[in-house]
Amino acid sequence: MARVAVLGTGIMGAPMALNLAKAGHEVTVWNRSADKAERLADHGLAVASTAKGAVEGADALVSMLSDGPVSEELLLGGGVIAAVPSGAVVMVMSSIPVNTARRLSEAARAGGRTAVDAPVSGGEKGAIEGTLAIMAGGGEADFAAAKPYLEAMGRATHVGPDGAGQLAKLANQLIVANTIATVSEALLLAERGGADPAAVREALLGGFADSTILRQHGLRMLSGDFVPGGPAKYQLKDIRTALASAAEAKLELPVSEMVCELFTSMIEHGGGDTDHSGVIEEIRRRNGLPQSTLTD
Amino acid sequence: MARVAVLGTGIMGAPMALNLAKAGHEVTVWNRSADKAERLADHGLAVASTAKGAVEGADALVSMLSDGPVSEELLLGGGVIAAVPSGAVVMVMSSIPVNTARRLSEAARAGGRTAVDAPVSGGEKGAIEGTLAIMAGGGEADFAAAKPYLEAMGRATHVGPDGAGQLAKLANQLIVANTIATVSEALLLAERGGADPAAVREALLGGFADSTILRQHGLRMLSGDFVPGGPAKYQLKDIRTALASAAEAKLELPVSEMVCELFTSMIEHGGGDTDHSGVIEEIRRRNGLPQSTLTD
Repeated sequence: MARVAVLGTGIMGAPMALNLAKAGHEVTVWNRSADKAERLADHGLAVASTAKGAVEGADALVSMLSDGPVSEELLLGGGVIAAVPSGAVVMVMSSIPVNTARRLSEAARAGGRTAVDAPVSGGEKGAIEGTLAIMAGGGEADFAAAKPYLEAMGRATHVGPDGAGQLAKLANQLIVANTIATVSEALLLAERGGADPAAVREALLGGFADSTILRQHGLRMLSGDFVPGGPAKYQLKDIRTALASAAEAKLELPVSEMVCELFTSMIEHGGGDTDHSGVIEEIRRRNGLPQSTLTD
Repeated sequence: MARVAVLGTGIMGAPMALNLAKAGHEVTVWNRSADKAERLADHGLAVASTAKGAVEGADALVSMLSDGPVSEELLLGGGVIAAVPSGAVVMVMSSIPVNTARRLSEAARAGGRTAVDAPVSGGEKGAIEGTLAIMAGGGEADFAAAKPYLEAMGRATHVGPDGAGQLAKLANQLIVANTIATVSEALLLAERGGADPAAVREALLGGFADSTILRQHGLRMLSGDFVPGGPAKYQLKDIRTALASAAEAKLELPVSEMVCELFTSMIEHGGGDTDHSGVIEEIRRRNGLPQSTLTD
């Protein structure tokens, strides 16, 4: 098996590192706040005191740093990619802007390495269970080199060239946001028209209107339980990144733009730290309706 | 078992009548164009020459007439409900306006009958297989009386008082329309940004962005196969009926209104008879992009 460095061992990175170790790899971890990395020593993982130290002699790098600027600063500015041995695979798995992902993959490849941008969907649960949906961008050879590592963490799909993984993740986030707004409107129509919205949700399962959002977020809307989950402020950040990518491709997306307006207004009205399914409360507010009351 | 009259034996009504017969009921059918009813005689169903004749002595009436005006004209104006015996169950299962459904149920109940509005989702396939999603509005006693008949045709859920079945159906149709527009925008973002949209769709299955629409209509969008299916002109009619019901409840639904604009423009540009998943072509058109070419 291979030597794998994992940078960023937060909620997602830590279980991903553990799954790589479980698959038989010799894993070295590093995290900016050292305590989060040191916990992994109990599970037999090596802990490096610097990011550059972690990648020394590595066959593969998995980067799960918090965002685009941090990734660029450390991996490029801090010389971490330059310290990864030639011939190794660089897998940047954080959700970061498309252009940042392209720059990182190009920098990795310039030193005789292969590289993919490979953001994930599926949350902490998927990271722990090794069932993440992994969307990988890069060349055929890049994906072939990365795949054995990615498969230790979830189901990997090659979705196109450099940056395509990030685009797929943005498409995912747009669908999530718009579907949440859509299910909100449909349940409000049912409720205000005099039907029982919980029974309506139940009746719709299994039909053309069925979705993961109707099943999971629909329940939250009905119970008025908006403890995050996925905070609305991050949902808005994703929508804006997606719309910026669309604008670069000279593409107007009218439904997503309307949903962006709703989330913007939700956050202006203090809803940033509530779950993204709470956008139903924003639609209530606009219609002069009282907010849901929390059940118990 | 019971004597059941089925009015309207088109694409949906005919297999529904057959499933009632299969469940052991003595079924009498009637259809405005007699040939469609007469075909069912080969399967052992009785064929009536008038709608009033069909309901004579019936324990239950299933109405699957084409739309609201036809239902009102025949069932009320034509005296058909008045001819249904006292104590029988009246089940109006067409998709019709909420207010029409309420008037029909009230008229049925006035003569000592029970009544539900019970529109369906699941299409011809669901009707044939007896797996329709049936959304029923009415009182508890109405639903209890109707349920044994409804269960011969699919899965019945009691969603509230009179008209609630139609409201649930409208909620269903809104979700379908909005999700189609949403998946269109996400796949276009992927495509125009340089990813492989087919691989992106594949990568998203099983995650938070998953839906019946992504699975089924997403495939149509990728192949450019817009043979209906569900013609866009009917989708627009449903969206407008839903928004009218929302307006009656003093409810503004901004995302659904934007989707209504898209379908309106699609139909103004000649797309009324193409499948509703073809709204992706409307979004292409607005962005000055060429239309998909049909893969034969």
